Amino acid sequence: MINFTYYNPARIIFGKGTEDQVGSEMKKLGSRVLFVYGGGSIKRIGLYDKVVKALNDAGIYFTELSGVKPNPRLGLVNEGIRLCKEQKLDSVLVVGGGSSIDTGKAVAAGALYNGDVWDFFEGKADVQQALPVGVVLTIPAAGSESSDGSVITKEDGLLKRSFGSEHVIPKFAIMNPEFTYSLPDYQTACGASDILAHLMERYFTKVDHVDFTDRLIEATMKTIINNTPLVLANPTDYHARAEVMWAGTVAHNNLLNTGRIGDWASHHIEHELSAIYDIAHGAGLAIVFPAWQKYVCHEDMDRFVQFAVRVFDVDFAFGEKELIVAEGIRRLERWYKEIGMPTRLSDVSIDDKNLRIMAEKCCANGPDGNFKKLTADDVYEIYKLAL
Amino acid sequence: MINFTYYNPARIIFGKGTEDQVGSEMKKLGSRVLFVYGGGSIKRIGLYDKVVKALNDAGIYFTELSGVKPNPRLGLVNEGIRLCKEQKLDSVLVVGGGSSIDTGKAVAAGALYNGDVWDFFEGKADVQQALPVGVVLTIPAAGSESSDGSVITKEDGLLKRSFGSEHVIPKFAIMNPEFTYSLPDYQTACGASDILAHLMERYFTKVDHVDFTDRLIEATMKTIINNTPLVLANPTDYHARAEVMWAGTVAHNNLLNTGRIGDWASHHIEHELSAIYDIAHGAGLAIVFPAWQKYVCHEDMDRFVQFAVRVFDVDFAFGEKELIVAEGIRRLERWYKEIGMPTRLSDVSIDDKNLRIMAEKCCANGPDGNFKKLTADDVYEIYKLAL
Repeated sequence: MINFTYYNPARIIFGKGTEDQVGSEMKKLGSRVLFVYGGGSIKRIGLYDKVVKALNDAGIYFTELSGVKPNPRLGLVNEGIRLCKEQKLDSVLVVGGGSSIDTGKAVAAGALYNGDVWDFFEGKADVQQALPVGVVLTIPAAGSESSDGSVITKEDGLLKRSFGSEHVIPKFAIMNPEFTYSLPDYQTACGASDILAHLMERYFTKVDHVDFTDRLIEATMKTIINNTPLVLANPTDYHARAEVMWAGTVAHNNLLNTGRIGDWASHHIEHELSAIYDIAHGAGLAIVFPAWQKYVCHEDMDRFVQFAVRVFDVDFAFGEKELIVAEGIRRLERWYKEIGMPTRLSDVSIDDKNLRIMAEKCCANGPDGNFKKLTADDVYEIYKLAL
Repeated sequence: MINFTYYNPARIIFGKGTEDQVGSEMKKLGSRVLFVYGGGSIKRIGLYDKVVKALNDAGIYFTELSGVKPNPRLGLVNEGIRLCKEQKLDSVLVVGGGSSIDTGKAVAAGALYNGDVWDFFEGKADVQQALPVGVVLTIPAAGSESSDGSVITKEDGLLKRSFGSEHVIPKFAIMNPEFTYSLPDYQTACGASDILAHLMERYFTKVDHVDFTDRLIEATMKTIINNTPLVLANPTDYHARAEVMWAGTVAHNNLLNTGRIGDWASHHIEHELSAIYDIAHGAGLAIVFPAWQKYVCHEDMDRFVQFAVRVFDVDFAFGEKELIVAEGIRRLERWYKEIGMPTRLSDVSIDDKNLRIMAEKCCANGPDGNFKKLTADDVYEIYKLAL
């Protein structure tokens, strides 16, 4: 176990009817709010009206920034920053999923910065302060509701990049599983895939003596693996929805990588995919992860055996390490298929045309990953394994 | 899963050498510090000198409140409050374990309260504000370094009572496992027993659909069960010490009871024991818990089967539910014995003289517990089972 600092002050307000607290919670953060959301889904489920009424009842002035799309773009972030500066807004409320929250976080940091907000994403500047952010979560997936990160795509060059700062950890996250009932199956499955990926990125570490966090991650993986099919079988199963939603937050709030170093190459390999092809992040991860596992498992077979045995219940009697590991990966793929995810690039009609370009972009700043340092050639091989 | 709010803003600073940060962290909290600790142990391990130097280097004025004993007393809390008020101290630094931290928290709340601090423990008043508290942890056990609770014993009547408030959650907790190397085996084992008890109190719930937190608790229990014998076999095993220390914090920071209702009767049954007999809290818990389990298991045999199977690896082939549950409890007792804990009152020379008095005191405010509501008669039976 390596030294670590863990700090997560997000107040989680979880359960039925908790959206009623959005007015009182926002009032603690400010009186002039940028209200960020995506499109019509929060209107269809009645949440938009509830939030507007709550803000009005609390006497809070607000301006809307809507139209956030999946793989959110820098242009809308800059629009939000302009609104905050011009209208002297003092806080940000996001209602939606990871794309809206990441947009809101970037706006919150950029609104109190005199330079170009993209500086944070390129590592040219650190966030020193940010407007306080509050969240009402409607899509369990990204974990952004209590994480310190934001992922944004710059239109020019389709560069998908991230930054992290404790200043943008949301002050509160209101989470009512009922607001996830109407998510389409495919989006539910993509969210589950994203959550599982956040866990696997943390799990595959070269740091040894990480017994406690290994077990916590395994517990969270099993929760997602078991409850996602329940949700897909019955989209209004409150309890299964609740398990997935809360596990999705804990998966990414940094508790589970205390004392260890995660990998994150798979996320970056996927980012290049979804930046160019605009496929769902979760679907891209289901394609990338098995290929990544097959390519890197020889770096530490024992860890992959542990994954197979503890997470996918592969019996030691299955045979040699190689066989146990292969069976673990096979069961991961089987689970992806069971929940309706693609597991090959061909499943989403992507051919080999851009593989080399994506591999080069992924490693533009040098080799990527920690479990195994991957060069552009390595990443290219992983893309080929995923064809 | 039931609705919940989860909020834990304690900054955990974990690992070797982290005590070097105590000056800079305290400086964020104040400039006039009450420095709370127990006895000579922090001097023997050189930590006292390091902390004094760090405070001096940071230009922080401090006054000492030392002499905290296990099962900490109200008298010393009132002494600390007097010092804070008279010397206009603005923050509290605790170096030690649960007893010192609980003392520091009570002082922090009482210093900004005009009434009697015992009001908080009797539920006559809620904490509205408190001096900020910082911690350097030396004994993994109570979890007080990031919890919202404090347990204090009033000398008059030997009343052991607690209060909880997010205002007393420490702002930071510095945790270097090396400072636990010199703990005597018995104290190490008592700490592990206390941690396991915090987990079992949360685990045995009547709330259903708690899959995620069940799995997290099981993961944490297995961490304690596996690493404690390693620590006892080799007290300077950094990694095993680190696993126990970090698991002990997470066990009690409220994450693991999100969406569920714990029991806590066993803690209260033990509090009556250690209030009268002044035995170590962890030793008392090792005596009380098996008896409590035998007495209440029929409230929900399936939960006890899950405990036996998942935590103590009892095979389903073991037989009927009754047999599986009994074997789980037997393995818990075996683990207590393995780490040197007593499992019967007779092991610590306590006879049946005060059982009725303790049972009545335990339930003075009505039946206790949630998994099964226990009357004084029930508690009496549990004490008898523990003889």
